[in-house]
Amino acid sequence: MDLKNFFNPSGVAVVGASSDKHKVGRQVLDSIIKNGYAGQIYPINRENKIVAGRPAFAGLEMIPVKNKSAILAVIVIPAPFVLAEIEKCASLGIKNIIVISAGFKESGSEGIEREVALAKLARQHKLNILGPNCLGFINNNNRLNASFADSGTGGGQIAFLSQSGAIGSAVLDWLRNKSFNLGYFISLGNKAALDENDFLEYLAADKKTSAIFFYLEDIKDGQKFMSLVSKISPKKPIVVLKSGMSERGGQMAKSHTGAMAGGAAAIKAGLERAGAIMIESLEELFDLLLVFQARGAFGKINGDLHILTNAGGIAVLSADEISRQKLNLKDSLDILGDASALKYEQALDKILRSSSGDNVLVLLTPQTATEPMLTAKSIIKVDQKYAKRLVVASFLGEVAVSKAKDFLLENNVPAFNYPERAIRAIKKLTDRQTTIKSLTPFRKSEFPDGKAKTDYLYLFNLLNKYKFPTVKTLKYSNSVQASYPAVLKAVGPDFLHKTDKGAIMLNLENRQALDKAAANFSKNNKKILNNPGNYLIVQPQIKSGLEIILGFKRDVSFGPLILVGIGGIYAEIFKEFRTVIADLNTARALEFIKSLPFYPILTGARGGKKYNIKQLASILVALSKLANEHPEIKEFDINPLFLRTEGALAGDVRAII
Amino acid sequence: MDLKNFFNPSGVAVVGASSDKHKVGRQVLDSIIKNGYAGQIYPINRENKIVAGRPAFAGLEMIPVKNKSAILAVIVIPAPFVLAEIEKCASLGIKNIIVISAGFKESGSEGIEREVALAKLARQHKLNILGPNCLGFINNNNRLNASFADSGTGGGQIAFLSQSGAIGSAVLDWLRNKSFNLGYFISLGNKAALDENDFLEYLAADKKTSAIFFYLEDIKDGQKFMSLVSKISPKKPIVVLKSGMSERGGQMAKSHTGAMAGGAAAIKAGLERAGAIMIESLEELFDLLLVFQARGAFGKINGDLHILTNAGGIAVLSADEISRQKLNLKDSLDILGDASALKYEQALDKILRSSSGDNVLVLLTPQTATEPMLTAKSIIKVDQKYAKRLVVASFLGEVAVSKAKDFLLENNVPAFNYPERAIRAIKKLTDRQTTIKSLTPFRKSEFPDGKAKTDYLYLFNLLNKYKFPTVKTLKYSNSVQASYPAVLKAVGPDFLHKTDKGAIMLNLENRQALDKAAANFSKNNKKILNNPGNYLIVQPQIKSGLEIILGFKRDVSFGPLILVGIGGIYAEIFKEFRTVIADLNTARALEFIKSLPFYPILTGARGGKKYNIKQLASILVALSKLANEHPEIKEFDINPLFLRTEGALAGDVRAII
Repeated sequence: MDLKNFFNPSGVAVVGASSDKHKVGRQVLDSIIKNGYAGQIYPINRENKIVAGRPAFAGLEMIPVKNKSAILAVIVIPAPFVLAEIEKCASLGIKNIIVISAGFKESGSEGIEREVALAKLARQHKLNILGPNCLGFINNNNRLNASFADSGTGGGQIAFLSQSGAIGSAVLDWLRNKSFNLGYFISLGNKAALDENDFLEYLAADKKTSAIFFYLEDIKDGQKFMSLVSKISPKKPIVVLKSGMSERGGQMAKSHTGAMAGGAAAIKAGLERAGAIMIESLEELFDLLLVFQARGAFGKINGDLHILTNAGGIAVLSADEISRQKLNLKDSLDILGDASALKYEQALDKILRSSSGDNVLVLLTPQTATEPMLTAKSIIKVDQKYAKRLVVASFLGEVAVSKAKDFLLENNVPAFNYPERAIRAIKKLTDRQTTIKSLTPFRKSEFPDGKAKTDYLYLFNLLNKYKFPTVKTLKYSNSVQASYPAVLKAVGPDFLHKTDKGAIMLNLENRQALDKAAANFSKNNKKILNNPGNYLIVQPQIKSGLEIILGFKRDVSFGPLILVGIGGIYAEIFKEFRTVIADLNTARALEFIKSLPFYPILTGARGGKKYNIKQLASILVALSKLANEHPEIKEFDINPLFLRTEGALAGDVRAII
Repeated sequence: MDLKNFFNPSGVAVVGASSDKHKVGRQVLDSIIKNGYAGQIYPINRENKIVAGRPAFAGLEMIPVKNKSAILAVIVIPAPFVLAEIEKCASLGIKNIIVISAGFKESGSEGIEREVALAKLARQHKLNILGPNCLGFINNNNRLNASFADSGTGGGQIAFLSQSGAIGSAVLDWLRNKSFNLGYFISLGNKAALDENDFLEYLAADKKTSAIFFYLEDIKDGQKFMSLVSKISPKKPIVVLKSGMSERGGQMAKSHTGAMAGGAAAIKAGLERAGAIMIESLEELFDLLLVFQARGAFGKINGDLHILTNAGGIAVLSADEISRQKLNLKDSLDILGDASALKYEQALDKILRSSSGDNVLVLLTPQTATEPMLTAKSIIKVDQKYAKRLVVASFLGEVAVSKAKDFLLENNVPAFNYPERAIRAIKKLTDRQTTIKSLTPFRKSEFPDGKAKTDYLYLFNLLNKYKFPTVKTLKYSNSVQASYPAVLKAVGPDFLHKTDKGAIMLNLENRQALDKAAANFSKNNKKILNNPGNYLIVQPQIKSGLEIILGFKRDVSFGPLILVGIGGIYAEIFKEFRTVIADLNTARALEFIKSLPFYPILTGARGGKKYNIKQLASILVALSKLANEHPEIKEFDINPLFLRTEGALAGDVRAII
């Protein structure tokens, strides 16, 4: 999808440009004019020949340009008329369209139908359609504000894409009177045609864009998102605020967007896999927008931090936060309460001169002799001398320091209200550096649906095919060659919850005991065992070992997801299952194992048993492969996997197709 | 200590009131005049007869008032002259003094001596001295600004005490142009005489004060602090920002304040015990100052929250935060993007009318039809109707909403920049409600030093005296009546780390084996065993059971502190020891046990063993008693305490006196 003309059109037509200044159509037109867009502007209005002092056209077809492929049409008319207008665009060769109008998916069954038709038109005619139900977009790098939101900044390296118009306007309002390097603002709306993935592809290639911010309520094609983000994020930081990550929030988001989105666990695992900077709150969004004002934020950031301060208490509070964030406080230099701007300048220069690559947090509290504005100028002067270093400021207070803070911001030194916020933002940057070091591009696996069955012995064979170590499992017959003590299990569709039905018989010490247990069970379950899917199997009883639960689940958006938990008495302590995207190689599997909360148990903490971590990694890699190559399996559980010092064994397996 | 005259003097003398407007002494005088203090003002200046247009006096003795006991003297002269001036105060009957001058404890050995002398004078003459090295205080409720900081607010229910002048000025600067209900600002300085405890006593009795905020770098008398705070905090919320809680921050704080403060774990346990609202950052400090603008914040707050919003996305993000904070989102009402002020008013009224006691978070994003100022007025109108309810707002954005936010604040509706901050502040309030429910006053135990020894069998007897269940422990002799299998241990000052020296001999199955082990060990350790403090003991070997480590440590400020950890393979997983102030009764002990990270293991999670929680509680209560009644014991460890289904047993004990 080529979006070059979409964001840099030769002309913009506003369908629904009204003479009434309060109407959205007119506001869009006014935005385009006010922002100084250099191309042609075509107000489309059926009745008036002049709108906003400009000649208006009765319809798109009246635009006096032969080849209309480089024109952008912004449609701001009532929903029932939108589809006809899009068809008109298609017939006129207009490929780039924003539908600002609401009245689609978000508004009931009629709207849903309308949106389906819109998406179909986009596919049919290969149209680039943003929206519907959006604010439009702003390309500050081209002075084009094709939205009804106020733009207010002068362009730059950051792109912000918001699935919520309201949050988009709030962020724009925050940035309005400040000097922010916002290049693109894109209001995603209902994402009927163009979605986050399309814009990611465009912004990845756009030379002016260096960092991409998202507020998202759903991610429909999580696998494509992962493959794009994992490719782009080592070069351009990608920040994602995903709402609805809590259970309640997720329900609300679903009813709000009507979207079939990926589950929270899948999204979290997916964003981790892709190397995105994942944030949770609007405050963090703003903190990161702020820190990316610094030129140094785009480069390599290490976890070492220097503090320069004119007050001890605030440096101590900062040290506390640095410790909580597991960053490294290299040095804290207190130049005392009467520090002049010159003293700040000299001290900052010295810190930057004598260290390489470390970050500096400059703290200032307004005291009697403090010179906030002059100090800001000093900081800027030194910061520009060491252009690739990350220098971040926190000036405490309001009245005495607000002008100095604005001035810092204008000159690419992020000025935070609280040092703790600055430190957390730096933490996000340093975490990203760690992540991208080992990041490899995600590739979606495409395998046709196979014909897997849920038959118990079939699944054990499948495990063996993938080289899983398994407990020797044989169909019971009175001539079976079992090892003792043995376990007898009834398996099949009627025994999915084995323990409930007495379908696991333990401690069978010899042939006789086994046959007796089998005979008894068969007698009591004659009818059920008539179903050939249900039968008895024999396994040697595994007595020692740590019980692990592992499996996969297929997320509608992010694809297969590996889950790992622990059984036995540890299960109550480590209740949570950990999840990871199922494209594990050995390195990623080992990293994942290290992140498990019960990892100390695996390594034989305090004289406990040591388990074979490498083998567990290869089991996870095999499970990941199985998950990808058998898309027909929806859920798959190995419970338990016995971990033993002498090697692991899968003891039981279950699949849902 | 009566501080009534201190904060409400009949007159204020400024010693060092200068004709030079840039000098601190003059700034203090100007503050007093500017703020409209109604009492007498006496500039003290040796040379000039007029200062700041007012008649000046050559010395405190020249003040034309006979009884000077209700006069406050503010001393702002070079440090070497301060002591003489204090002596003069004493001789003139001036009891209330602020020493603003620096040059004391914070400035080397000469300063330390000076401070010691100052403290001695205060004790000798029963003087109320604030400082030295402070900004002074502001009593906005009496229009008295006896500091060189700008006051700026009109009085109210909140007192803010800061041990850092710089953080104090920063907070004042933040509040300056806003309408904040700050009644008292007290800059604590070096706390040579008056400290946080003295002011706590005064503010507890002060009818105008309803909430007390602290920024503290050290707490010298933690036990007194706990007894005061635990008494006051059920009535008046007490918020404490304690810096230096990380290891590095703690070191920095120590060098900054030169204080022998309590350890971080003791402070945390102490503040918990006292029912203080403990915060970690300046941002939280500000959030809580903000939330206490609401009249409803002082009353009963439950954990139920309603959201009223004009945008879905921001409500979802709020729901996510509410879930993270473990609050209960009762309902989220989206009145849509075109919501008018009237719609907000009606909806808010409906929520407050139909629920009782719940809190409401009103969210607003600036959209085309949004009326921020009118909506603010609507919210205020409804809030005043339901005076005791907690209504908190978050208006997103800046330009479009800042005036409306200021107006909300002026009218006691806290307006947060980010909904997440509002939610966290509410969480702090609801946590406090839970805490104060079961809060009982802390009472410092006073016992004279006893004569405890560190002898092993003596300590076992001590444990038995406190009714601890212990492993039967006998001094070894070749006629000892042991149970088998037995453990032989060498104990005494040379065997504090028993495992190092082979001093624990396990699995002694019978008499012969025991005697043989004893003989061997004695032969190899002849010299050491000649010391009568070292000897051999015999215990039955405990095989089953969960090993717990418990003990106490005496904090210099907060007194004895109970520590509990877990041994065995769990030790690596639950590395942290949990601490609690050693004034446990059964209820508090049970509460503490429930907070242990390994609590699920104790309750027999997933079919594990169940341990006797009640017995463990009574052991902790006994340990707490022992800790208080034996102040001569500095450290005390029981390691292990065997927990068994049939009852607990202390297996080993160690004390440092």
